Amino acid sequence: MDVSFFQEILSKISDRGRQILDLSSLIGTDAEESFEELCQALVSSRGEASGVALARRILDLYRLTTDKEKDAFFVFLARHFLPSTEAVQRAATAYLEQPEIGRLETLMAAVESPRQELFRRLNLAPGGTTALVRMREDLLRRLKDNPQLAGVDRDFVHLFSSWFNRGFLVLAHLSWSSPASILEKLIAYEKVHKIHGFEDLRRRLDPNDRRCFAFFHPALVDEPLIFVQVALASEIPSSIQLLLASDAEDFDDPDPSVAVFYSISNCQDGLRGISFGNFLIKQVAEDMKKEKPSLKTFVTLSPAPTFRSWLEANKAELSYLPAAQRKLIDAALAGQFGESEEELDALEPAILAAAAHYYLRAKDKKGKPVDPVARFHLGNGARLERINWLGDTSEKGIRESLSVMVNYLYDLKDIERNHEAYVNLSQVAASKAVRSILLAPEPNAKAAQRKSETIS
Amino acid sequence: MDVSFFQEILSKISDRGRQILDLSSLIGTDAEESFEELCQALVSSRGEASGVALARRILDLYRLTTDKEKDAFFVFLARHFLPSTEAVQRAATAYLEQPEIGRLETLMAAVESPRQELFRRLNLAPGGTTALVRMREDLLRRLKDNPQLAGVDRDFVHLFSSWFNRGFLVLAHLSWSSPASILEKLIAYEKVHKIHGFEDLRRRLDPNDRRCFAFFHPALVDEPLIFVQVALASEIPSSIQLLLASDAEDFDDPDPSVAVFYSISNCQDGLRGISFGNFLIKQVAEDMKKEKPSLKTFVTLSPAPTFRSWLEANKAELSYLPAAQRKLIDAALAGQFGESEEELDALEPAILAAAAHYYLRAKDKKGKPVDPVARFHLGNGARLERINWLGDTSEKGIRESLSVMVNYLYDLKDIERNHEAYVNLSQVAASKAVRSILLAPEPNAKAAQRKSETIS
Amino acid sequence: MDVSFFQEILSKISDRGRQILDLSSLIGTDAEESFEELCQALVSSRGEASGVALARRILDLYRLTTDKEKDAFFVFLARHFLPSTEAVQRAATAYLEQPEIGRLETLMAAVESPRQELFRRLNLAPGGTTALVRMREDLLRRLKDNPQLAGVDRDFVHLFSSWFNRGFLVLAHLSWSSPASILEKLIAYEKVHKIHGFEDLRRRLDPNDRRCFAFFHPALVDEPLIFVQVALASEIPSSIQLLLASDAEDFDDPDPSVAVFYSISNCQDGLRGISFGNFLIKQVAEDMKKEKPSLKTFVTLSPAPTFRSWLEANKAELSYLPAAQRKLIDAALAGQFGESEEELDALEPAILAAAAHYYLRAKDKKGKPVDPVARFHLGNGARLERINWLGDTSEKGIRESLSVMVNYLYDLKDIERNHEAYVNLSQVAASKAVRSILLAPEPNAKAAQRKSETIS
Amino acid sequence: MDVSFFQEILSKISDRGRQILDLSSLIGTDAEESFEELCQALVSSRGEASGVALARRILDLYRLTTDKEKDAFFVFLARHFLPSTEAVQRAATAYLEQPEIGRLETLMAAVESPRQELFRRLNLAPGGTTALVRMREDLLRRLKDNPQLAGVDRDFVHLFSSWFNRGFLVLAHLSWSSPASILEKLIAYEKVHKIHGFEDLRRRLDPNDRRCFAFFHPALVDEPLIFVQVALASEIPSSIQLLLASDAEDFDDPDPSVAVFYSISNCQDGLRGISFGNFLIKQVAEDMKKEKPSLKTFVTLSPAPTFRSWLEANKAELSYLPAAQRKLIDAALAGQFGESEEELDALEPAILAAAAHYYLRAKDKKGKPVDPVARFHLGNGARLERINWLGDTSEKGIRESLSVMVNYLYDLKDIERNHEAYVNLSQVAASKAVRSILLAPEPNAKAAQRKSETIS
Repeated sequence: MDVSFFQEILSKISDRGRQILDLSSLIGTDAEESFEELCQALVSSRGEASGVALARRILDLYRLTTDKEKDAFFVFLARHFLPSTEAVQRAATAYLEQPEIGRLETLMAAVESPRQELFRRLNLAPGGTTALVRMREDLLRRLKDNPQLAGVDRDFVHLFSSWFNRGFLVLAHLSWSSPASILEKLIAYEKVHKIHGFEDLRRRLDPNDRRCFAFFHPALVDEPLIFVQVALASEIPSSIQLLLASDAEDFDDPDPSVAVFYSISNCQDGLRGISFGNFLIKQVAEDMKKEKPSLKTFVTLSPAPTFRSWLEANKAELSYLPAAQRKLIDAALAGQFGESEEELDALEPAILAAAAHYYLRAKDKKGKPVDPVARFHLGNGARLERINWLGDTSEKGIRESLSVMVNYLYDLKDIERNHEAYVNLSQVAASKAVRSILLAPEPNAKAAQRKSETIS
Repeated sequence: MDVSFFQEILSKISDRGRQILDLSSLIGTDAEESFEELCQALVSSRGEASGVALARRILDLYRLTTDKEKDAFFVFLARHFLPSTEAVQRAATAYLEQPEIGRLETLMAAVESPRQELFRRLNLAPGGTTALVRMREDLLRRLKDNPQLAGVDRDFVHLFSSWFNRGFLVLAHLSWSSPASILEKLIAYEKVHKIHGFEDLRRRLDPNDRRCFAFFHPALVDEPLIFVQVALASEIPSSIQLLLASDAEDFDDPDPSVAVFYSISNCQDGLRGISFGNFLIKQVAEDMKKEKPSLKTFVTLSPAPTFRSWLEANKAELSYLPAAQRKLIDAALAGQFGESEEELDALEPAILAAAAHYYLRAKDKKGKPVDPVARFHLGNGARLERINWLGDTSEKGIRESLSVMVNYLYDLKDIERNHEAYVNLSQVAASKAVRSILLAPEPNAKAAQRKSETIS
Repeated sequence: MDVSFFQEILSKISDRGRQILDLSSLIGTDAEESFEELCQALVSSRGEASGVALARRILDLYRLTTDKEKDAFFVFLARHFLPSTEAVQRAATAYLEQPEIGRLETLMAAVESPRQELFRRLNLAPGGTTALVRMREDLLRRLKDNPQLAGVDRDFVHLFSSWFNRGFLVLAHLSWSSPASILEKLIAYEKVHKIHGFEDLRRRLDPNDRRCFAFFHPALVDEPLIFVQVALASEIPSSIQLLLASDAEDFDDPDPSVAVFYSISNCQDGLRGISFGNFLIKQVAEDMKKEKPSLKTFVTLSPAPTFRSWLEANKAELSYLPAAQRKLIDAALAGQFGESEEELDALEPAILAAAAHYYLRAKDKKGKPVDPVARFHLGNGARLERINWLGDTSEKGIRESLSVMVNYLYDLKDIERNHEAYVNLSQVAASKAVRSILLAPEPNAKAAQRKSETIS
Repeated sequence: MDVSFFQEILSKISDRGRQILDLSSLIGTDAEESFEELCQALVSSRGEASGVALARRILDLYRLTTDKEKDAFFVFLARHFLPSTEAVQRAATAYLEQPEIGRLETLMAAVESPRQELFRRLNLAPGGTTALVRMREDLLRRLKDNPQLAGVDRDFVHLFSSWFNRGFLVLAHLSWSSPASILEKLIAYEKVHKIHGFEDLRRRLDPNDRRCFAFFHPALVDEPLIFVQVALASEIPSSIQLLLASDAEDFDDPDPSVAVFYSISNCQDGLRGISFGNFLIKQVAEDMKKEKPSLKTFVTLSPAPTFRSWLEANKAELSYLPAAQRKLIDAALAGQFGESEEELDALEPAILAAAAHYYLRAKDKKGKPVDPVARFHLGNGARLERINWLGDTSEKGIRESLSVMVNYLYDLKDIERNHEAYVNLSQVAASKAVRSILLAPEPNAKAAQRKSETIS
């Protein structure tokens, strides 16, 4: 009962967010004004009186604008919405003369990007937040070929990091009783294991051993930011095919002990770089533990998306493996993945050895693991728990990872330690089982370092 | 129907906001850690892994802390949460050497206050936003005697301006069907015309010619930010006593033409300086016009809070008034406010003349009107429509303003023009009726200036 | 805002309705008690103390029971849950002796069926209403072969008519934002124009010229009772294929004048005989008129489900038609429906003449039209507005009605008059256009009667 | 989340329920038609077509009608809305001839009161249920002086018993966050321990050891049917003054073991005789046990409203008490209630002995206890647990019950047995402690009966 009033109030946001922008509502603006003039007006004193109307007009115009006009708009933002060079120079000079707080603050004010104020004022319009997220999508598509736009993007990132602070996000449980208009977005946004229409989605949501959670933001109406799909189980799963098939039967364990995060997808391209996954997984783990105290283990079933491509490019690193194994790996990379049970059994130790190397020894330029999914979960403080042979036998699974999937384990009491060791020392937390797969000692590493490599 | 899902989702915010912080949930922190250590940890990489828990712990500690410890905490923020002087110097020097964009951005990054990151991360905790608003209340109480804390406050203002952007606020209609726990806050926060308990409040909310609207923020659960009380009427009212009494009778005009904003109160001391009133009045006017198309006039009935004190200090300015009037004014200031109808009638033109001068000619150091309420409404683009003799005959009304109240008119089509003229030229928009009260030409003003003074 | 509290309260119903019945919660009952003993206990004084638990137990048992046990249960209800013959005889005798009010009331009490009290007490259990509706479904399947169960059904009908009184029903607008779990029921329950999955449903709900409304009952959680699909249009439509296709294009008329009820489906077999359609159509018409004042015409596009079978059995009635037409009709019934445009054009007047006869002259035993859809709409007070050749060219449309569809017009000002004339005088309200299709005067009818036959 | 859609749907009821009836919306009715004609029309076939409009018109007229016209309306219902005597006679005769099921059903149909159909059709109007409940209030006020209206009331009772079946009621938790418009009704309806305004109410709702629950019906918008106030405690309370005072201090027991129902009030006079209290207490006990598993004891603190008046009239029954005690009782009845601690101590055993007699031995004509509150709780299956001297020392408490209050204990496992013994054998379930207060054996009772009198 206590929530009903506030709930009611909050629903008003959605109304505002959903309403179609109405060009006829423009007041106090000359229809002939250009984008540039309108943006300048919005950050001027005129914007204080007519901010909502001006912001609405700019966003309406933006929606109707051609791609070419958008190009020009972003260049305009990059070149002309900048702090005054003269003011910055003056403040910098003054500060260097005498670095005291007052002068520091003058300098802070002088360097603040006027684009941020522009974006904040654009947010006055109904649906403004959504429009700004879409605007950044447009920007990101241009960014690669227009490095000069990087500053505009940095301002977006700065603002969105503040606006989409986890304290403002709302965790929602999505189910088969959720609106079709929301559920169709799950179908559209799912990136890891494609959902084939509503009937397929139903199999992911409706069984009593499945859950789906998403973060929403109050000003981004009906748009999930990120969602995670969870399966309840009695033990840590090793195969996505088995997991996705298992919902066919009824799951009757009233006290499951394992929660499996088997798919996590970001939804908003315009929020790239604003990280939600870490918070989502931990919040969901905490909430589910309250709902089902029998849950003891929180684990992922995750892909190894770059394993095969890495292996193709770095076979040489595995020269310490027995020749027989290397031969099998070569054959597998050449397309002979094993046709009989026996061949698969023979291939298993070779691939697992290569995968263990891939996760524990292969490093990118910063000294972190080469696998992007590993970097995400290890960075969150999880531990590499198990490497699963034949974890994903789909065409994509073979093509990208020679069927390997892995489990990352989230153990609340170790998360902070693992994270610190990962961030500061680039240590990869891994279970004994994973470490023991490594066939030979790392050729050119000192014992001390090797020891620190793993934290169980 | 379309809103129900999102409404449901959003209600989760309130649950989080309401939940009592639980000290037992702390993980990964040593109970002996000091405030300072915890704050440093929160902005470090450790905060990335355990941000929610650390933020919760800091806010819990803060709540339990003594006033003296809070003093120390703010000083710590002021002195030790600052950009590195060395880094700023290096970046400033580099920029001055060659003022190009890359170096500008390095400078921007170098001067960013780490306190803002601290506040953003504190917001990760459940109820974080509310806790931060309360923290700023504590700060504001200390600010006057501790000017060294000004920088901390500036960071709060910067962040709150972004977080409490109008695009994130929700307009709510408050009625007698609203929760008692919200309504009691109206009683507590009403600043203009005191509400004496629930029965009195009911008279302000329940009659069918009364409305009340408030802005809420999704993360500030159950706490109005600002609210405005409105009466529907057939003509512009001239007396607050009549207006507050009139609800005793049934108001049966199905097509009222005037909406009167007769009280507007800010609720959150911790959000001082973040302006909502301008948006609230305009949004309410727009929404009410949709609900009741018969409404043509949107007007306030507003106090003149500093009229008497100004008059006492600046009688000399009125030397151009007839001596008889000046004598009556003197007597009124001395307490002889008029006891008979005749005396009051005699006093009226004198007080009105003084009031017209007060609004149209008296200026503060920046050249703006001396009346703070006038500055607010004129700054919003409203027009001074009428000065009402005997507008507020309460003890407070006589004491502060010799019974004067005024109406500011919000006319959508003039708002931008009025605002621009007010901001840029310090012109006071006033009706002919008000201007004509001025008994004599302004002694030392040029005709041209006089002309531009008023815009009807 | 005013609804939020009550809304919140009401949502509790759904929680109760959804919760799975829990056998372990039984108190005060001996697990060995039979159905019969439990039912007797429920209506006894024991039921007053433990009604909820007993009701829950009976419904749980019922759910787990075999079809054969259900047979026995219904026979038990039919034979043993009856008023006491002796008591009825006594009361009837006393009343006949002296027919005064006191004795009438004794008689009323004596004849009241104890089954109704049983059903009312079964409704004490969580989910009781749903269980009782399902129970009647089971009963209806047995009724045809077990006429002895008719009395049990009459008691259900009596109770459900009272419980599902229109005053307790809630009209809901269903849209693409409604829960998937509700929407899938539309797919399942649609009887007139089959919906092929969610994508097809989306085309019926999402375009801005489509609406869907349903009645719900607070105690029948998540189960629509009846729903109607509506298309907005600029003129009365003549073809269901065109209508269902038209949503492909954008419908841009901001001021449509016609609302077309093109499909209306009852959802609950267990509520057969409890009529909702009449109320639904009129309520939807009233609500839509408020939403879109441009709507002037409320009309159906309805099938003629028994037209062809009637025609096959009653060709003789059409002997007054020209021989050429009769020949064409014979050919059409034989499967030669017309392959070229010319053949179809030739067939049209013959079929329309037959259809006009079918609607205006063919009568069932009670003197009402033979078409069941006609009886429904004419009984509601609607008027037969138009007969459409090639209205439904689907395989089913040709098979059942030789492509004929009709429009019934709901004109609020005529509804009561039409209804009265239909009920009392069996008059069919029809437009001039329809009446003029009749080729020849009705052979054996008096002029006066003919005249009264139609009301435009 | 799962409830949000249905919640949304249900909220529509409230909208309909709240909307003001609009006389202008009448269709198909002649403004000159009398009440009688309209009622006849509503139950005729005309009512099938225009039921909603006719029902609305009748209820509108009823609202505007004078008391005298209402008198006439009820007499009209009593005399003219009756089954046809002739039809009943015919059906009764036929049944007596041959008492088979078909004829029984004809008889059932013949005796059914047409008033029930009238009421059901009146319920078609928006707000119909509320209007009918108000109508019965009007009727009840007339009933005492107009016994001829009893039949009308019986029809109301019959219908309301079906409509307000517990299966359709919704249990709501009322708190300080509930709407003021609902809370003011608690203040108005509280009958046991008067609530003095909102501040007093707040003390009953806001402390964390207080709860309030109410039943609502979906069609009776914003109107509680019955509510109960609960205090959480560590032991069974003996004084209402202590209990109502205790909320002044913080109650910090996180694991209270006792829930005290200290006030239960019916709200709707128009639903008199429809029993909700039994269900409410049991449902609340069940729900609270789920919320707080530490709760073991569910007990009331109840008044003895007729104790003193009974004692005054039946002193003779207590002749077996020692003369000294009888003298003290006489003095207390005469107004000498005891002024010193000593006097009160002396009075205690005398009053307790009289009270024990009052509860255990004094009987009404049906052999049940004379105390109405006792009949309610014992009828529910509760046990008389304790008689408290100085339980209510307010003026009213002394006046009505010489300060006595009692606790009734609800023990789920005994409820059915207690209820059966009470209903069938008039046995009063009482604790040993209560029974042992009886000073002497009941003079004229057999041992066997005495034994069965009490069940602990």
